[in-house]
Amino acid sequence: MPGSADSTAEYRGKLHPSVARVREAVRTALAGLPQATTVLVACSGGADSLALAAATAFEAPKLGLRAGAVIVDHGLQAKSGDVAATAAEQCRSLGLEPVHVRAVEVGDEGGPEGAARTARYDALRDVANEVGADVVLLAHTRNDQAETVLLGLARGSGARSLAGMAPVVGILRRPFLELSRATTTAACLASGLQAWHDPHNDDPKYKRVRVRHEVLPVLEESLGPGVIEALARTAGLLRADADALDALAADLAETAVRRTDGEVLCDVGLLEGEPAAIRTRALRQAALEAGCRANDLTAGHIAAVDALVTDWRGQRWIDLPQGVRAVRRAGFIVLAPGVTP
Amino acid sequence: MPGSADSTAEYRGKLHPSVARVREAVRTALAGLPQATTVLVACSGGADSLALAAATAFEAPKLGLRAGAVIVDHGLQAKSGDVAATAAEQCRSLGLEPVHVRAVEVGDEGGPEGAARTARYDALRDVANEVGADVVLLAHTRNDQAETVLLGLARGSGARSLAGMAPVVGILRRPFLELSRATTTAACLASGLQAWHDPHNDDPKYKRVRVRHEVLPVLEESLGPGVIEALARTAGLLRADADALDALAADLAETAVRRTDGEVLCDVGLLEGEPAAIRTRALRQAALEAGCRANDLTAGHIAAVDALVTDWRGQRWIDLPQGVRAVRRAGFIVLAPGVTP
Repeated sequence: MPGSADSTAEYRGKLHPSVARVREAVRTALAGLPQATTVLVACSGGADSLALAAATAFEAPKLGLRAGAVIVDHGLQAKSGDVAATAAEQCRSLGLEPVHVRAVEVGDEGGPEGAARTARYDALRDVANEVGADVVLLAHTRNDQAETVLLGLARGSGARSLAGMAPVVGILRRPFLELSRATTTAACLASGLQAWHDPHNDDPKYKRVRVRHEVLPVLEESLGPGVIEALARTAGLLRADADALDALAADLAETAVRRTDGEVLCDVGLLEGEPAAIRTRALRQAALEAGCRANDLTAGHIAAVDALVTDWRGQRWIDLPQGVRAVRRAGFIVLAPGVTP
Repeated sequence: MPGSADSTAEYRGKLHPSVARVREAVRTALAGLPQATTVLVACSGGADSLALAAATAFEAPKLGLRAGAVIVDHGLQAKSGDVAATAAEQCRSLGLEPVHVRAVEVGDEGGPEGAARTARYDALRDVANEVGADVVLLAHTRNDQAETVLLGLARGSGARSLAGMAPVVGILRRPFLELSRATTTAACLASGLQAWHDPHNDDPKYKRVRVRHEVLPVLEESLGPGVIEALARTAGLLRADADALDALAADLAETAVRRTDGEVLCDVGLLEGEPAAIRTRALRQAALEAGCRANDLTAGHIAAVDALVTDWRGQRWIDLPQGVRAVRRAGFIVLAPGVTP
């Protein structure tokens, strides 16, 4: 059911605090964009993205921006087309223009959640490209961020997997990463916006749903109500760490890693004195260059390759994913498909 | 009830796998120590430290080392003296020598768990000093490490608080950080060692107990049985990150931070181009030098000081713990008690 953000966002004659907060977050995210820039809200019709649509419809014109919306129909549920059409109608009623519904086909690479995500982001970029939008706003909240950190924790693969979602990446911006889901829900209520409740959000077949409904409530009860904020804060801090260390590792790889004749060579002399956090990241970079896929390459693989550098006792080769092998040869770690000493 | 590791560690005529694993872990931790070094096992009488005592009694003599034990009596429970005496007797029966019981007074600084920890480590260092021990072995397992990571996560203060316990720090070594509690318990059973069950380990008034009995089981059920390993692996990776970044921040502070006339001065020109992860650590270092206490200094405080460097809009001063203030003045961030612009 469509509603107008302008007319109903008042609460007892005053702007409801939740509406003020979502608007402020959007204003901050849009600040500094050139006049007449087109921004698109990625809207599912759920509370988070509907609050984002309403706040963007309110703030963008005041900043001289053009604001539209894109609704991705994943086709994974019966009547998903109706849900998308309703969301589109809500976005139009809020004054967003253009509003596009894009139906996508979800493959199965990377599991059901990963495949849906890939299809969704591809569609968002395509529509942005077609309508000449420079910014796509996503409605992920602090709660989504906390869930992402816990999912990364279960992988155990270090800072990057705990760094959650970035506030800005390419054309994507996430204004709500510091707001709670309670705030976006309250903003919809205060604005008379009727949000769609995705039944997938209650389906325990999804890991994220289990984190949301089983893990986080227990964490909050055992460790205190600040856990979600703490997880989101952790994400930001570890993102900064990972950015710094990745950049230093890239600098190191620049001099210590080179590719020749289908082999990737890592200079042991240049690597061994470096801190483990930087050295192992440079080795990971080298393994990727040699053909390993990021998702298949574990911390255990890299630790084994690192032992060839720092704990050399004449080990045999190390088998890495995609048939890549690492051996130590004449002061170099050599990475190549099926290479032997 | 005392038992002998040598006589009963066999299982159907073979060494039980759990006993083999705890012994191997101890052997690795003791490798390379000079002959006749004295090592002490910190033993509570619980399964983890009793398994450690037995394995050390077995391995140390073969490496030419002298192995004793120290039992800290925290005096926090009725009959804690009896528990300590039983543990001491078990250690002696295993062949450890010398065996010392040390009663401590637990203060209240840092909460009940923090105060007990401080008293315990002080006692361990004292006894090590008195008997001329160069190494004290602690029985923390991978499960303890996972619990420590989750407790750090709830603080939300970044990599260092997620880095858990180090395998080696000063004279302390933790051989069991990669073994599960199930292994140490099985080793005690296989060796006929009767472990003491600390009732505090079931008391939900302690956060760690809630993490162990409430949070971790739910995490394992929701995210899969590898969660404890993933948490322990995360600790190791983030420890390496924190070590590298702390060292780089110390290098930066060397040039960019100096102390003069009771003020700590941070050179904005030298800080502003550095990666956030290194810059904020240098600023944290400066705040500690200016008199802030580590436990009171939050990521939020440092973010506010950092904004004086990277987002200067003529802000007023920033209030930090212990009455320290940070202001920007003539290209420097000045930190000092109650300093004003």
